[in-house]
Amino acid sequence: MEKENFVIGVDYGTDSVRSLLMHTAGGAEIASAVFHYPRWKDGLYCQPAENRFRQHPLDYIEGLEQTILSCLSQAGPAAARYVRAISVDTTGSSPVAVDETGTPLGLLPPFRGNPNALFVLWKDHTAVREAAEINTHATRFPTNYLRYVGGIYSSEWFWAKLLHILRIDEDVRKACYSWVEHCDWIPFLLTGGRNIRDMRRSVCAAGHKALWAKDFSPGGLPPDEFFATLDPLLKSFTTRLYTETYTSDQAAGTLSAEWATRLGLSTSVIVGVGAFDAHMGAVGGQIEPYHLSKVMGTSTCDMLVAPPGEVGDRLVKGICGQVPGSVIPGMIGMEAGQSAFGDAYAWFRNLLAWPLQQLVPDQPGLVDKIIPILSGHAADLNPSEADPLALDWLNGRRTPDANQLLKGAITGLSLGTDAPQIFHAIAEATCFGAKSIADRFISEGIPVKGLIGLGGVAKKSPFIMQMMADVMDRPIRIHASEQTCALGAAMFAATAAGLYPKVEDAMSAIGRGFDATYTPNPRRTALYAERYRQYNTLGHFVESTTKQL
Amino acid sequence: MEKENFVIGVDYGTDSVRSLLMHTAGGAEIASAVFHYPRWKDGLYCQPAENRFRQHPLDYIEGLEQTILSCLSQAGPAAARYVRAISVDTTGSSPVAVDETGTPLGLLPPFRGNPNALFVLWKDHTAVREAAEINTHATRFPTNYLRYVGGIYSSEWFWAKLLHILRIDEDVRKACYSWVEHCDWIPFLLTGGRNIRDMRRSVCAAGHKALWAKDFSPGGLPPDEFFATLDPLLKSFTTRLYTETYTSDQAAGTLSAEWATRLGLSTSVIVGVGAFDAHMGAVGGQIEPYHLSKVMGTSTCDMLVAPPGEVGDRLVKGICGQVPGSVIPGMIGMEAGQSAFGDAYAWFRNLLAWPLQQLVPDQPGLVDKIIPILSGHAADLNPSEADPLALDWLNGRRTPDANQLLKGAITGLSLGTDAPQIFHAIAEATCFGAKSIADRFISEGIPVKGLIGLGGVAKKSPFIMQMMADVMDRPIRIHASEQTCALGAAMFAATAAGLYPKVEDAMSAIGRGFDATYTPNPRRTALYAERYRQYNTLGHFVESTTKQL
Repeated sequence: MEKENFVIGVDYGTDSVRSLLMHTAGGAEIASAVFHYPRWKDGLYCQPAENRFRQHPLDYIEGLEQTILSCLSQAGPAAARYVRAISVDTTGSSPVAVDETGTPLGLLPPFRGNPNALFVLWKDHTAVREAAEINTHATRFPTNYLRYVGGIYSSEWFWAKLLHILRIDEDVRKACYSWVEHCDWIPFLLTGGRNIRDMRRSVCAAGHKALWAKDFSPGGLPPDEFFATLDPLLKSFTTRLYTETYTSDQAAGTLSAEWATRLGLSTSVIVGVGAFDAHMGAVGGQIEPYHLSKVMGTSTCDMLVAPPGEVGDRLVKGICGQVPGSVIPGMIGMEAGQSAFGDAYAWFRNLLAWPLQQLVPDQPGLVDKIIPILSGHAADLNPSEADPLALDWLNGRRTPDANQLLKGAITGLSLGTDAPQIFHAIAEATCFGAKSIADRFISEGIPVKGLIGLGGVAKKSPFIMQMMADVMDRPIRIHASEQTCALGAAMFAATAAGLYPKVEDAMSAIGRGFDATYTPNPRRTALYAERYRQYNTLGHFVESTTKQL
Repeated sequence: MEKENFVIGVDYGTDSVRSLLMHTAGGAEIASAVFHYPRWKDGLYCQPAENRFRQHPLDYIEGLEQTILSCLSQAGPAAARYVRAISVDTTGSSPVAVDETGTPLGLLPPFRGNPNALFVLWKDHTAVREAAEINTHATRFPTNYLRYVGGIYSSEWFWAKLLHILRIDEDVRKACYSWVEHCDWIPFLLTGGRNIRDMRRSVCAAGHKALWAKDFSPGGLPPDEFFATLDPLLKSFTTRLYTETYTSDQAAGTLSAEWATRLGLSTSVIVGVGAFDAHMGAVGGQIEPYHLSKVMGTSTCDMLVAPPGEVGDRLVKGICGQVPGSVIPGMIGMEAGQSAFGDAYAWFRNLLAWPLQQLVPDQPGLVDKIIPILSGHAADLNPSEADPLALDWLNGRRTPDANQLLKGAITGLSLGTDAPQIFHAIAEATCFGAKSIADRFISEGIPVKGLIGLGGVAKKSPFIMQMMADVMDRPIRIHASEQTCALGAAMFAATAAGLYPKVEDAMSAIGRGFDATYTPNPRRTALYAERYRQYNTLGHFVESTTKQL
């Protein structure tokens, strides 16, 4: 029994956190538990009409404790002693203002209820103006500091959000010592960090969202001059951030006495360096070089890894980032993605649910039936060139060429257009958005040799996945695991604990393989190619008429 | 009691027929009755996804008999003896194939259930290809036969529909002797006509939809060569139509013995020449020269009258028609309109109702509550430049510049966009569509001196009417009558019966005046002017990317 090795992967998604207790030998899933953020569920601190989305650290803390305790309780009294490591992934960029002890301001009494003292969730777009300023500002420097993030800085990212919060909230500005990603804060919390300077920041968040790159300066971040001239509020801020970053196969530390007690675990449990969900998800989903690993949930994150020797300095324009070590240590991790994927379907569901909520409020469960029924009807449609055509930019466009000011559209509407037809068009638009990302990799010289589907939509919607194969004109393999992000975190935990020399070894040992493949329907690919052309024409029009800030 | 004079106005709308029994002295409404077409309500013979909308003559006959009998029954046993005249208005162009006796083929046993033997409702767009051919064909003739219909022939009109039906249905083609508008057939039916050559055709339908104009040929219609070279199927068809047309202040005849018996009326009752609903509605709504009289129902018909001396030969490009005598005998009647107005709101209601119908089918009444609730929420919105923006061409575009291939759109959508915001955008788009018609009259040199609102939407939706005033930046007066079309028919009946020398006298004697005026909100007009510009930009894009047939 002394050889039993358990690891815990913790995956913070947009709506909930999941913990997964794994047996490393053979990759058996012993237990898992999910916790829905209660404050988030109640819509607190958010203002969807203004694209303001904030999350409270207590939602994260409560979820961390409850899901791990639930896993251990499911696994029986002996389990706790075999737990070797915990690793965490989160959404991102989802940063928060912290004081010098690394405590999010929202946990301090003076900031109770202040949304600007909470985590600024990845999909918060309140910083569109600041992102636009960064993009203009960056053109004034001989060094292109945006070159590893696709050439365009996004309002979804670290610096734009920091500058926005500093500008709009004087109280937060005065109390804010540093600015921390969710994925870096949880390991810091678990290891009992008391000084922000001790926080081990992940290369994943730093490289993809905070402009950190080894060749920019001795400290990796762009020089202070860059930020001080962007806005004096940022002067010297880099000195309160970091110079070193870490890959997720390394340990952030060991469990603090406090958290060991709370969880009933040993203080020798390793806590791994965190990373973003899609990055660990790609590992959990057994990514291969030049395969596009698509985590398809509310949004998508599309990951691609390439050995450095072959890709070298080839820069890919308009993606979110290319960072050595960000997905698999030793490879270049490239990230792209769509700002709204499942969220686009949920938006249409919510639109259709409006009368239900007004007129049948006593039956809230009806809303959950809408997407399955719509999918069934939409899958039966025989698509044609005259169908409604949609644009999926309901939450702006993340890639290619980030622009959060863009909006969605539905065209080709007639009096005969019904809900399943529009749902079909929205589904199609999300697949077109996916295709435009693959096309960008290819046009920038990065081959795309295969597609891997991960995440809720990949597992739950054969309708969308078949359409994805048809639109992309490529097969897409769906990974067997329902929870590749938590699984990837568990693989990294096992590696950080030294149970495997490299995460690739953990992937082979623990990976679950694929359980479905969708292949293109040859009768549909030509039609979708023509409609994709129309989608691009519509997109160019919307882009050309969108006012810039 | 011998001086009592009653008249009956019969108004055939899209969904129902209404009869109105009036006392001519002082314009008292004695009784009215509505009959919803049962076959139409069941969706028979229609295919909305293909824009095929057909109506059965039995729906019309049953409605005629039942509503008049109901009015007489409400008015008491003495009423029938005072009835002097009946006049009828209908939708249009809504023609049907008839045999030599003027009987619609759909009433004959061999054609039972054949939609091509039924009335082709105004909003049927199955003849888009034929309309396009007519437009191309017309350019080959030195005489511009489209000059009185705005330069563009519509798929909603007489000749396009005739040619389409002749082409697609050999049985109908062989049995079809002539082609008759609904507004001409009902008077023919009531007067007991037995020979199609005796049918008195209205100048309203002939001039606006069938290219009849005094200066085109001795018979008024374009010469046979025009049609024979368009398609040999039309060769000599004009010989089976008409050379004379009549204004609605004239009698079509008197009630036949059969109908006198069915209705309990005298055979001395005058039956007036029919006309289209919006034309008689404009009269019922007390139109004035250079005032745009907007009948706002499922679609809109915008009527304007001008004395011939001033307008003379000034041709207005892109409207539906300008015909001497078509609204008020002695003036030029001009018609424009939007293909979808209330239908646009109903479309969105039906879209939102989809889950209700799927999930709460036992409560069909819920659907009727959607538009009132939406209107309440939408009226509370504070419109801004960033709001969703829609295009109202859900049923193509009637005017300016008819193009039934165009479709609607909704742009500017974000994850925060909800149902009231989209409803607001659709409402706004219908008002923008209205503005583009007024703008066209003005740019073609016809002043628009005022707006008169008639019809269901005008009476029922203060939300839409206030927005109309804001968008148009002009006041709009709402006529007091709930049923201006039937009222206008009653005024024409009174005139045809000789109770008044001219219909203007009947208008003064019977007219009910206005009961509301919406004035522009000066804080909104600038915003709407800017959004109208965006609407036009979106419209140009959709038009430029719409494939022609």
